[in-house]
Amino acid sequence: MSLLVVGSVAFDAIETPFGKVDRTLGGAASYFALAASHFVPVRMVAIVGEDFSDKDRAVFKGRKIDLSGLEHAAGKSFFWSGRYSQNMNERTTLATELNVFADFKPTLPDTYLDTKNVFLGNIQPDLQKSVLHQLDGKPRIVGLDTMNYWIEGSNAQLRETLKYVDILTINDDETRQLTGEHNLIRASRHVFKLGPKILIIKRGEHGALMVHPKFIFSVPAFPLEEVHDPTGAGDTFAGGFMGYLAKAGNMNEQSLRRAMVYGSVLASFTVEKFGVARLAKVTRREIEERARKFAKLTAFKL
Amino acid sequence: MSLLVVGSVAFDAIETPFGKVDRTLGGAASYFALAASHFVPVRMVAIVGEDFSDKDRAVFKGRKIDLSGLEHAAGKSFFWSGRYSQNMNERTTLATELNVFADFKPTLPDTYLDTKNVFLGNIQPDLQKSVLHQLDGKPRIVGLDTMNYWIEGSNAQLRETLKYVDILTINDDETRQLTGEHNLIRASRHVFKLGPKILIIKRGEHGALMVHPKFIFSVPAFPLEEVHDPTGAGDTFAGGFMGYLAKAGNMNEQSLRRAMVYGSVLASFTVEKFGVARLAKVTRREIEERARKFAKLTAFKL
Repeated sequence: MSLLVVGSVAFDAIETPFGKVDRTLGGAASYFALAASHFVPVRMVAIVGEDFSDKDRAVFKGRKIDLSGLEHAAGKSFFWSGRYSQNMNERTTLATELNVFADFKPTLPDTYLDTKNVFLGNIQPDLQKSVLHQLDGKPRIVGLDTMNYWIEGSNAQLRETLKYVDILTINDDETRQLTGEHNLIRASRHVFKLGPKILIIKRGEHGALMVHPKFIFSVPAFPLEEVHDPTGAGDTFAGGFMGYLAKAGNMNEQSLRRAMVYGSVLASFTVEKFGVARLAKVTRREIEERARKFAKLTAFKL
Repeated sequence: MSLLVVGSVAFDAIETPFGKVDRTLGGAASYFALAASHFVPVRMVAIVGEDFSDKDRAVFKGRKIDLSGLEHAAGKSFFWSGRYSQNMNERTTLATELNVFADFKPTLPDTYLDTKNVFLGNIQPDLQKSVLHQLDGKPRIVGLDTMNYWIEGSNAQLRETLKYVDILTINDDETRQLTGEHNLIRASRHVFKLGPKILIIKRGEHGALMVHPKFIFSVPAFPLEEVHDPTGAGDTFAGGFMGYLAKAGNMNEQSLRRAMVYGSVLASFTVEKFGVARLAKVTRREIEERARKFAKLTAFKL
């Protein structure tokens, strides 16, 4: 029941109204793996440069995260720098330095080839597809994340890759951009025609919406007193979601609903501190406790 | 178990990507009363001009809505004109003509004086307070809505009125403006010090959040395929919420949670058509059916 994730491992410089950090471990694959590893063993496929140290590697240590697919290349790791607005609803990208990530060609170690659960993080759609093609046999669950850059610039390639995808996790704007349809429920029917059976719309501080041909499920973001850094919340959500689903071993309605809750639970920890600081420390006990709080947050009887 | 509402009855000109209407009955008290009257008899306090016709009055007919507190004055009714953006997340006010509403001094008919449930719609805070003072005895449940204009321009008066309020229903920005606190959970504690025991934060397409000193409850907006006009959704929510609560006759946790759901249910009908067109026609059966859909939309088991 391993879960493979391909995506970025990066260093981030982040500034929010609560402070700033000049260099912290980040990247979608980092958040995803740390979240998912609470449920299943994670196999990571990513690339880092010579600046990725043993100290950085230690963040993943003691977790069920296989780093044998983490390629080390000459040069510097992907670097991203951003600043959040006063209300943290908007962020400005100050710098994006792809570095070794620019030439990333995901290559799966032999030990990964039997993976049945796959999450294709936000990278070029052809590369996402190449990961699926390297696997032995057809995976059981394939999730995919993408962004405006690929929807616009690699649209045909993205559509080709989506044919092999079960679950698409994107935000409101990306859903509208991909489908040309403003209404999210109608947009989901466009998405279903492209391949995915399930659309998960990530809404940041407003939670997430799952649209399945047979049901819709809405989960809020957990209302916190301290939100210090929203970076990585969406990737953490995806990791918690896919991790729970891989562990459940099926995509039935109950598992999908629970997976949404665990995704939201994990994301609620990530935003409490800068970078992966909080996520890297959260315990299974804290996760279960917050999941019960989610139940109270949304429960009512008619 | 009657419910008194004071607020605006207006004519609106509305333009959305789905069409436009030049003159439709609107105003917060109209939406509120139509929604609340599904649960309890409503007593309306408002003012209209000579342009308010029998046809307009007929919208409220056959509902348990007492219009004896609807003052008729020489001149024209409050008129508002607005245009929604393509994605309907933003709206531009094109015209606000207060007309007879400018000199509105709410006067309660004798038959209203025993009302135990009151909703003070978005009008000048001193006028809101004057309504409470006219009542015989202390009401059981008092709700209040306000807006940036009063928070900024009549702050001291608003704070005075809030001392007598149980439930404050405002949006995210208004919560932050009123309390000077960005984080909504911390902001709620400021609100509790001002008087209200319960803060309901209306979030438009993202639903609503209730913060009570002992619990937090989140309800989504219902994901609809057709949203034609968001005007009045917040006022409808307040009407459904207060109406249900007045009927329940208490403010215990279960009643408050259910009231939130019914508020959201009613609002989901309002946005389906322009103005009050859909709300004025919705049946109790349709309301209950959608309430059950809300339960499915949010239900999960850990």
